[in-house]
Amino acid sequence: MSQKPAIIIDLLFNQDNVRAGLKGAFRGREVINRADPENRDRDLSAAHYALLWKPKDDLFQRATGLKALFSGGAGVDHVLTLPDLPDLPLVRFVDPSLTNRMSEWVVMQCLMHLRQHVTYSRQHARKLWSPLNQPEASDLTVGVMGMGVLGLDSAIKLKMMGFNVLGWSRTKKVVDGIETFEASELDAFLGKCDMLVGLLPLTDATTGIFNAELFAKLRRGGALGAPVFINAGRGKSQVEADIIASIEKGVLKGASLDVFETEPLPASSKLWAMDSVLITPHTASDSEASALFAHVERQIERFEAGQPLEHLVSRDTGY
Amino acid sequence: MSQKPAIIIDLLFNQDNVRAGLKGAFRGREVINRADPENRDRDLSAAHYALLWKPKDDLFQRATGLKALFSGGAGVDHVLTLPDLPDLPLVRFVDPSLTNRMSEWVVMQCLMHLRQHVTYSRQHARKLWSPLNQPEASDLTVGVMGMGVLGLDSAIKLKMMGFNVLGWSRTKKVVDGIETFEASELDAFLGKCDMLVGLLPLTDATTGIFNAELFAKLRRGGALGAPVFINAGRGKSQVEADIIASIEKGVLKGASLDVFETEPLPASSKLWAMDSVLITPHTASDSEASALFAHVERQIERFEAGQPLEHLVSRDTGY
Repeated sequence: MSQKPAIIIDLLFNQDNVRAGLKGAFRGREVINRADPENRDRDLSAAHYALLWKPKDDLFQRATGLKALFSGGAGVDHVLTLPDLPDLPLVRFVDPSLTNRMSEWVVMQCLMHLRQHVTYSRQHARKLWSPLNQPEASDLTVGVMGMGVLGLDSAIKLKMMGFNVLGWSRTKKVVDGIETFEASELDAFLGKCDMLVGLLPLTDATTGIFNAELFAKLRRGGALGAPVFINAGRGKSQVEADIIASIEKGVLKGASLDVFETEPLPASSKLWAMDSVLITPHTASDSEASALFAHVERQIERFEAGQPLEHLVSRDTGY
Repeated sequence: MSQKPAIIIDLLFNQDNVRAGLKGAFRGREVINRADPENRDRDLSAAHYALLWKPKDDLFQRATGLKALFSGGAGVDHVLTLPDLPDLPLVRFVDPSLTNRMSEWVVMQCLMHLRQHVTYSRQHARKLWSPLNQPEASDLTVGVMGMGVLGLDSAIKLKMMGFNVLGWSRTKKVVDGIETFEASELDAFLGKCDMLVGLLPLTDATTGIFNAELFAKLRRGGALGAPVFINAGRGKSQVEADIIASIEKGVLKGASLDVFETEPLPASSKLWAMDSVLITPHTASDSEASALFAHVERQIERFEAGQPLEHLVSRDTGY
């Protein structure tokens, strides 16, 4: 009955979610979920597609008939560094749900710093009623580093909440109503930012980019007193020792971190105990399995109809 | 030199802010700030205008030449209950800054409940890395009660963040893209709401409106499990004993409260110790003195040019 070429699912995700999402997905197509024990020795050579996130080591040796690869997440650094990665089209996961969820997290974190949530929450614990001086969003400038699909949506929503918003990306993006900067203009961009939001892909150029030197270039003396760093891109883009030192020195006022150099964040990390650091466990934007499968299905249909794949990753830029 | 009729300032605000805001305000007009000791015995009978918030008891006996009154805040319940209130036009404070600040607070609170901030913050304290199942904004319906200037702006911004948004007001408002309900449709409205945002003026009809009976009508079994109550209108619209009991019984999942029956909230209130209640000390939206004076100046100019005053309060409805 399975007339259409098979797809291999090789996702190191919660398998309850994967199995629930697979119900009704990829109709008329053979689906080989490598997490199922019965597929352990299955012949993979006839499959045309692989959807992967931290796949099993032997995937590319055994799946020799692949024509296109699909990343299980928006980031593809985990895919591009796989050994034996074949030179095939690679599609990232782009989905309105993923984008909206990321913007929820980013807007919430910016508002929490603006509205001095940490201080109010400390006062709450002491049953202390004490109004603080309160700047408003338009008194602050938020800079978004990384103006892909996620960064753009966050920038638009931050703007709509009243913040001044700037965007920075490797190559300049033109966005209505938002001043944007390109690679060479990084220092000028940083010098205007009271809050810095990281939504960068992980590449050689972005590894460790959020370090003490960069934090020192952010605007000082704005309405919050000192700048705030917010990262929901990739943990390896940040130098956590520098975040800690910069907060201790007052170069940064605080941070919101969803990603970390090592995940889960080790209990030994000093970040856990820092009052002005808000931590979430890499949940800013989840890939929902059913949305992921619908996205892959849509792209495969395009591919089989001879249309170009969308959201293709460039091997040159690494995203 | 003061050619224009005088204005009396009778504001129980922080006087540093008032005095700073008065610099450069009301040019060419005599300004009588009743907080200044030298104005204690000043003749007030020639003043045409009074800007007031919890004014001194003798204001209306002494200021006998008033032609218009201006409230120092968006709410006017404190003004309408003043003894000897003369039958003069009363203008509420409406200002983009006031509106934007309120929406910052409302959107932040809705996002914090959506994104399970209380649970993540508890996990943070235990250095626990544990991703939770996460609904997205579009899985939830937020109902805004009170669709004046503040409610409308909050509703639009919540919608833009991805929430389903409904509006309820005494008389039906027509708002593009937002389903609205009027007084008689309250139960139908409540039955659809996973989060309820209160932005109502305080009137006889809204005193104690947020009570156990109303909470029991909110939608149950939505993506958060149980509904959430958020109030930044007036404290006397809520029955705090009912909020506490409803949370204890699981009828409400949690609350965000900026206003209270008695302010400051007494240390003896059980609300302080409830994990799922977020408290701010009536700071959701501050009246900034300079913005307030600019607004009053604008309205006085209209008045003296023979144009109608804007943002007039109706004595019938109480807002």
